[in-house]
Amino acid sequence: MKIALDAMGGDYAPKAAVEGAIQASEELNLEIYLVGVEELIKKEFDKCRKRNAKITIVDAPEVIKMGESIFSFRKKRKSSIRVGAQLVKNGEADAFVSAGDTGAVMFISKTILGALKGVERPALAILVPTLRGLSLLIDVGANAVCKPRHLKQFAFMGKAFMESVMGMKNPKIGLMSIGEEESKGNELIKDAYFELKNSPLNFIGNLEGKDIYKGIADVIVCDGFTGNVALKVTEGIIEVLFFMMRREIMQNLFSKIGYLLMKRALKKLKKKIDYTEYGGALLLGLNGICIVGHGRSNSYAIKNAIKMAKEFVRNKVQERIKLELLNMDKYLLQDWRIIGEKS
Amino acid sequence: MKIALDAMGGDYAPKAAVEGAIQASEELNLEIYLVGVEELIKKEFDKCRKRNAKITIVDAPEVIKMGESIFSFRKKRKSSIRVGAQLVKNGEADAFVSAGDTGAVMFISKTILGALKGVERPALAILVPTLRGLSLLIDVGANAVCKPRHLKQFAFMGKAFMESVMGMKNPKIGLMSIGEEESKGNELIKDAYFELKNSPLNFIGNLEGKDIYKGIADVIVCDGFTGNVALKVTEGIIEVLFFMMRREIMQNLFSKIGYLLMKRALKKLKKKIDYTEYGGALLLGLNGICIVGHGRSNSYAIKNAIKMAKEFVRNKVQERIKLELLNMDKYLLQDWRIIGEKS
Repeated sequence: MKIALDAMGGDYAPKAAVEGAIQASEELNLEIYLVGVEELIKKEFDKCRKRNAKITIVDAPEVIKMGESIFSFRKKRKSSIRVGAQLVKNGEADAFVSAGDTGAVMFISKTILGALKGVERPALAILVPTLRGLSLLIDVGANAVCKPRHLKQFAFMGKAFMESVMGMKNPKIGLMSIGEEESKGNELIKDAYFELKNSPLNFIGNLEGKDIYKGIADVIVCDGFTGNVALKVTEGIIEVLFFMMRREIMQNLFSKIGYLLMKRALKKLKKKIDYTEYGGALLLGLNGICIVGHGRSNSYAIKNAIKMAKEFVRNKVQERIKLELLNMDKYLLQDWRIIGEKS
Repeated sequence: MKIALDAMGGDYAPKAAVEGAIQASEELNLEIYLVGVEELIKKEFDKCRKRNAKITIVDAPEVIKMGESIFSFRKKRKSSIRVGAQLVKNGEADAFVSAGDTGAVMFISKTILGALKGVERPALAILVPTLRGLSLLIDVGANAVCKPRHLKQFAFMGKAFMESVMGMKNPKIGLMSIGEEESKGNELIKDAYFELKNSPLNFIGNLEGKDIYKGIADVIVCDGFTGNVALKVTEGIIEVLFFMMRREIMQNLFSKIGYLLMKRALKKLKKKIDYTEYGGALLLGLNGICIVGHGRSNSYAIKNAIKMAKEFVRNKVQERIKLELLNMDKYLLQDWRIIGEKS
């Protein structure tokens, strides 16, 4: 199996990418294309100890930085993101992993790979641990601005993912809002509520932020702006909470001893909720597997993002979702036609 | 001091309100107007033990339920929210507390009390504990849909609050987005970024969800939809995290002992971040003090919301903010004129 990795993406590129690629290649027995500015990659690569890493460096002399515009995505035809996605398109790699700018990865991957039938906008989806298991949060940052029908398509993609990958039947779909009532939310949410209610989906209504981690819904649908804030708030509060807890606990001997006794359990818990363990989010709805890693990814997180890509390839996630969406396609296409007539 | 309390607001009304009012009156030495459906209040009131509670029941036979429309806010002229706000307007009460529908409290209070000069939209503000102290998150739910200039007004109100109440000088203002770069976010955020950048405020740029609790900014500005999701996600994750922690910890004897030793420290921590301890959020920018309690408020949370109102009255928060806003008024009004010319 071959994975293409964007060596220039993320806050700690190319160091974290190079180290993560070597670790992943050795531990997971994978061939990895390290895509990016050749001389920068080589410099890092030569510093690393490696035993059996199967790494090929693919030169992509242009770099897309955080926050660049769509205009420069188009102009930079030799960017690491474009070259990496192209490797998947050509069948040279089985999946593409990048910790670069989500918007750039989304836009360029869609241009190169295309979207699955029935999908206008691929979306970034992430599995979050809940009290009842795992739920899918979609979109967590690929589409900052959405139309109601995009949210409905996210719901269909989420259903397809949960059914084909997680083996769920008719997963419960919730819509992220600021109150359970139909009348709550902004215009986007109110209209999306109506669309979801009138779809064949198992729609359970609006959810509030507090419900995400309770596992009330199997798929939680939101626009990319809201989803990103929700995800990042979670990261932030966990980090701060653990910090506060340590500070609180070190103030007295008993609780200090208590903390030491609990440490293993706390570490286990942290592992469950730490993004570096999950590695990345899946860009769902593309014609190819594309994993977006966290911008702050260290080499460990990069390795786990590659691991995630491997699992998705091995389990034929892409084919399964494609098939599920084709089954729903009749409904989605019919719906599009109506929208076409309206507008 | 006299506080008007909406007895019909919140999931556990009127029971939680009646009990909270009695506790608050006795512990804080306050006179409380319990506003709502007289016979329902009396029924609960008669069940309670009371020693020195100074409670007056004010009949308001109409009830506004969660998720009702603006049309019914207008129609129900004898609702507990309207009658309560009217008590403040008439000078009979010093502040109004409600755990009812945020939108209804916002709309009706604004109609009755009016907004401060320079403020188009009052906003719900809450102090959140951070690694460096306390930051103000504004808006957390009063305005689901905002224009860029509303966000700027929230920033001015936040500044006024932090300067006059928390004694800060030139507080740092951050804008909630999905990336630090100016180009990140939806149209509202991009335009608000521009407005804030060109204002005399101490604007430090965009923040991500993960930054809220780090204390990077003193005032975090967002639209009411995003702010509400951020706040509720926090609530949810804390609840779930404590639950998961207990479950994780009870699986082995050492960590069980550890947990018991740590319990006090954990409780202290929980107190710091628990909304029932804070009681409520301030509806900032109104011509009068109005506290919105959490919809799930129990009697303890209601008591603390009343306590918060008392503190605000005692410290003349309203007068101080009014004065601060008057100082900034020149800028805000000038800005309005320009907007008026444009549109």
